[in-house]
Amino acid sequence: MTDRNYIERSFDLALRGSGYVSPNPLVGAVIVKDGEVISEGWHEKYGGPHAEANAINNYTGDLSGSTLYCNLEPCCHTNKKTPPCAPLIISSGIKRVVISNLDPNPEVAGKGVSMMQESGIEVVSGILEEKGNELNRFFFKHIKTKQPYVSLKIAASLDGFISTGRDVQTWLTGSESKKYVHSLRASYDAVLVGASTVKVDNPKLNVRETEGRNPIKIVVDGNLSINPDVSLISEEPEKLIIYTSENSNPDKISKLRKMGVTVVPVSSNRDSTLELAKVVADIGSRGLSSLLVEGGANIFSQFVASDLFDDIHLLTAPVLLGSGLNFAPLKNRKELKIKRSQKIGEDQLLLLTK
Amino acid sequence: MTDRNYIERSFDLALRGSGYVSPNPLVGAVIVKDGEVISEGWHEKYGGPHAEANAINNYTGDLSGSTLYCNLEPCCHTNKKTPPCAPLIISSGIKRVVISNLDPNPEVAGKGVSMMQESGIEVVSGILEEKGNELNRFFFKHIKTKQPYVSLKIAASLDGFISTGRDVQTWLTGSESKKYVHSLRASYDAVLVGASTVKVDNPKLNVRETEGRNPIKIVVDGNLSINPDVSLISEEPEKLIIYTSENSNPDKISKLRKMGVTVVPVSSNRDSTLELAKVVADIGSRGLSSLLVEGGANIFSQFVASDLFDDIHLLTAPVLLGSGLNFAPLKNRKELKIKRSQKIGEDQLLLLTK
Repeated sequence: MTDRNYIERSFDLALRGSGYVSPNPLVGAVIVKDGEVISEGWHEKYGGPHAEANAINNYTGDLSGSTLYCNLEPCCHTNKKTPPCAPLIISSGIKRVVISNLDPNPEVAGKGVSMMQESGIEVVSGILEEKGNELNRFFFKHIKTKQPYVSLKIAASLDGFISTGRDVQTWLTGSESKKYVHSLRASYDAVLVGASTVKVDNPKLNVRETEGRNPIKIVVDGNLSINPDVSLISEEPEKLIIYTSENSNPDKISKLRKMGVTVVPVSSNRDSTLELAKVVADIGSRGLSSLLVEGGANIFSQFVASDLFDDIHLLTAPVLLGSGLNFAPLKNRKELKIKRSQKIGEDQLLLLTK
Repeated sequence: MTDRNYIERSFDLALRGSGYVSPNPLVGAVIVKDGEVISEGWHEKYGGPHAEANAINNYTGDLSGSTLYCNLEPCCHTNKKTPPCAPLIISSGIKRVVISNLDPNPEVAGKGVSMMQESGIEVVSGILEEKGNELNRFFFKHIKTKQPYVSLKIAASLDGFISTGRDVQTWLTGSESKKYVHSLRASYDAVLVGASTVKVDNPKLNVRETEGRNPIKIVVDGNLSINPDVSLISEEPEKLIIYTSENSNPDKISKLRKMGVTVVPVSSNRDSTLELAKVVADIGSRGLSSLLVEGGANIFSQFVASDLFDDIHLLTAPVLLGSGLNFAPLKNRKELKIKRSQKIGEDQLLLLTK
């Protein structure tokens, strides 16, 4: 087993916190002594102990001379919910620390490494760095830009249609794709749709087809046309945020707020669409580090045209509709790259980046 | 090495004849004695010796007691260009014959196997039968139905457009996809486009990006609007077939025929499009066992709507056009299956079947 193998293991452990630790990073830790893994831990939930602390405290024997593998630089700052990890590592007797990524948090940013090195611990960093960056892409983007990592999820026909027409719900992708979408929801902090998707599909936007917690649900509804009877309001109003125009009916805003919904007025563009950059910035300011945009066509087009996305999960069903509503009516051509391609049940997934 | 391994080898050898043997099948043959391959052969070109004859004649030593592996049942009929293979095998001393597919040609159809068995040769058939069917899908369809195997090749954007508008040439897929298309052309007997594709793209439809012979080129041109200066006429008029309406200008038909072009009048539908089923049947009757349809949108739609296709090679470029000409404007939804998915350079290929 090499350093890379143990770092890979720390990635696997880190992923167990997916959906539960945000806006904290996903972190896993492995302690190895005399070639044997003697303890493991991961950051299990926001506010709970860090991965390194869990790994150290899970082991009751002597850690002296052991090596700690951890995908992220151990923390050293004290103005937070849990005690810092670097001093704990130093006092544990661990003699070598191997990490993948430095913590971009300006309060850590190499200081964790320095603190450990100064007390005589050998520190190796940058192992599988790119894969570590990928693992914590939500955290890294949010901590550096205060914006959420934005993914668009599109389910379309082979010929680029999401439905046979405007305001028509069309069944396209299969049950495996549905599971895939629900697993995405479980890993993103928030899921966003436009008002017409709420009207046509009355979606719940929760996690049913897989294990996981429900995300925050967001509706962009310029005219505040949402019907108070929809599932998003009746089922978990406290998990719903509606962005609407500053000119929307104050009585309706009050009524929704009394029902437990968060309503956020935002300024509009000339064409009366909401200023999407402001919506996204507000989402980031709420500590939501990742956003999954689930449609419809107008919303996709706005996110693509305003370049407010990081990647696109395009699920293609093996069907030709022949005509209908195109998934992203745009004024200008947009070049992308295929990062990953994968069969999901009978459908095809393309993961696209800029 | 098992029977399957040697049959696989016969498939590889058979493929070397791709593009050169039609309307004959692709056939490869391997002779094994005492666990060693002692000879190989394949059907190299239409009218030339069969694979079994090549393998037998390539070896000057003693074949007695050896095994012949061959993807297709050896022939036994005499009303054709070359002597039958079954008697040659019997007289060679070969004691065992392993094949993948029986020959569906009614003049063979099991009789080759019987003839060999009656002379004491052990015959095993059906090894990797499905893969053998796939290898000779052009031959099997043509011999059973007299129709060519029809593939549609489409290059489109992620959002289903083949160009930014009607009569506009739009560059979408990359250089690897171009090579893929040229290798398709080299393996199909004929390539077909509509009149507007000739007008907009002035294509050569020949094989430039890979090794291989040029296919027969076919244009569906109801009004006979083709310009006599286009590359298809100026470069290889003897390889061009134009299907046009029975009402087209006889003078223009004569003029094109004098230039070496084959012009075939066909009856029209009420909407003045040609009767595509008649076009396809005529192509099959000319001994062309495979047809690659390269566009444009109207032609694709007609082939899909009339169900006159066997599979679709959909090449998707990682770009959103936002609007434009959809690749298959259809009146009705058409369900397909993804048979294979593959990255080609920066693009994605989906091979779709019904």
